[in-house]
Amino acid sequence: MGRPFARLASSPNESRLQHRSPLNPPRQQRIAIVGVGLIGGSLGLALRKRGGFEVLGVCRSAESVQRVIKSAVVERATTDLAEAAGWADVMVFCTPVGEIADGLAKSLANLQPGAVITDAGSTKASLVATIEAALAKDPGGAANFVGAHPLAGDHRRGPEAARADLFAGRTVVITPTASTSAHALETVERMWQTVGAKTRRMSPTEHDAALARTSHLPHLVAAALAAATPPELLPLTATGWADTTRVAAGDAALWRDIYLANSAEVLMALDELEAKLAEYRAALVANEGPVLEQLLRTGKERRDAVGS
Amino acid sequence: MGRPFARLASSPNESRLQHRSPLNPPRQQRIAIVGVGLIGGSLGLALRKRGGFEVLGVCRSAESVQRVIKSAVVERATTDLAEAAGWADVMVFCTPVGEIADGLAKSLANLQPGAVITDAGSTKASLVATIEAALAKDPGGAANFVGAHPLAGDHRRGPEAARADLFAGRTVVITPTASTSAHALETVERMWQTVGAKTRRMSPTEHDAALARTSHLPHLVAAALAAATPPELLPLTATGWADTTRVAAGDAALWRDIYLANSAEVLMALDELEAKLAEYRAALVANEGPVLEQLLRTGKERRDAVGS
Repeated sequence: MGRPFARLASSPNESRLQHRSPLNPPRQQRIAIVGVGLIGGSLGLALRKRGGFEVLGVCRSAESVQRVIKSAVVERATTDLAEAAGWADVMVFCTPVGEIADGLAKSLANLQPGAVITDAGSTKASLVATIEAALAKDPGGAANFVGAHPLAGDHRRGPEAARADLFAGRTVVITPTASTSAHALETVERMWQTVGAKTRRMSPTEHDAALARTSHLPHLVAAALAAATPPELLPLTATGWADTTRVAAGDAALWRDIYLANSAEVLMALDELEAKLAEYRAALVANEGPVLEQLLRTGKERRDAVGS
Repeated sequence: MGRPFARLASSPNESRLQHRSPLNPPRQQRIAIVGVGLIGGSLGLALRKRGGFEVLGVCRSAESVQRVIKSAVVERATTDLAEAAGWADVMVFCTPVGEIADGLAKSLANLQPGAVITDAGSTKASLVATIEAALAKDPGGAANFVGAHPLAGDHRRGPEAARADLFAGRTVVITPTASTSAHALETVERMWQTVGAKTRRMSPTEHDAALARTSHLPHLVAAALAAATPPELLPLTATGWADTTRVAAGDAALWRDIYLANSAEVLMALDELEAKLAEYRAALVANEGPVLEQLLRTGKERRDAVGS
């Protein structure tokens, strides 16, 4: 399973030579995608489709290497994170948010000077702080990192669900800090723009406050609603229940880590929702049709503003 | 706009004659669909596709008559409810739940003897009681009515969104009472089975308790979640928010009537959800990963049991 990557690693000098010669085009940017599931796989597919990039996937197991090669979402794949770190111009961590810092720690010793590091994790504040602290051991090390979060997804998982257009027209939040270099910021923004996304800069804490309300709370509510439905009533569900609970099918361990990393903001978002639910409750208890209708109208307006 | 119906009304005697002659096939069953939106329109389309039925739509306005004729979901349409009542073998009220009893009251004087009456309303207990009381003024009148609720839908509305396969494989809950005749029950069950649905008998109160949990609460939560999302964060939503809030785009007045008709059960279902949310809250406050994961797993299992 190391073979596809080994094949690639045999020609680094030749590539660098091409890069330095004005008669040859610059060598392709080398992107290592760590964690090749729906997000990593879609990024790989989209970069390959666009061209101008060499895309290496880093997988957890030999089985996964076979799987991502079969899905053709990356050109090559390996399980050797250190070797990938020694090769890449850009390392993109697309593993679940709870595994990113660990993966980075294993790459640190081998990173090329100036290599840019980024991620696609769903929470940012604690993760970015952890990563910057780890990188700060080298002078200027943290400058090469910038966090990112593509606001795109699907309830399906794995490289087989990857789509080259997953990010087309979607927003990718980029979370620079005072440490971030212009080079890292531009490299990462350009990469996401290349695959059709709009980039938007926010601080890591701003990101987490926003996503608690637009993503983490909806997931929590969907899971709670599904869990609160007695099993014997499941045959009496229709599209409304199916839509409202769909994201609850997501990976439990991945979401556990998101909630652990962003619990304070999620709790505040939950308070806001509970306050809204209390308005519904009061209107139901009092049987107040006009109040109920107005509450429903506000929800509808907010929903209609987003589209299907 | 009365013309298409007038054209039909010119040949009732001929049809009855055919019905009585053993040499001719029985005349087609006459179905009047009152309220030709997504549900009524899909029923009309499906019955027409299946054949063996004459399908008349009853609309609120001349504009709607034109619209449903253009959509070809019914053969003919009229705004004259009384005339439709005098023609139909089966009257199916597919208007919003708050308008069904009123429509029925306007039809009563003209109903054919033995005509079966049913509806497609989303709540049953109070509606069925109201309708049975209205029909009980005639001896045996209530026997001809049985409530029904097709568990099928779409966030899109109107006859243009109608699909002949909307009910295929879906459950239609039929809610007979002690007053219901076997004839009414069989006629309505057969009609829904004809369009591909599975029928399931429940009492009106059982239905309302179940649907509070599988439909009314999910809608309420979706609307509250949408309303609790600050407008400036809407550009940071992705498919998770979009799925979880989708049903909030439904008609506010229609859902107001559902909540007014079923407030006690919806309040109990809301209590059950709040209890589940309190478990999430406690786990978040205590930062208990294993508890959070177990909660998410229960939601996922319940969701996975239903499928996409």
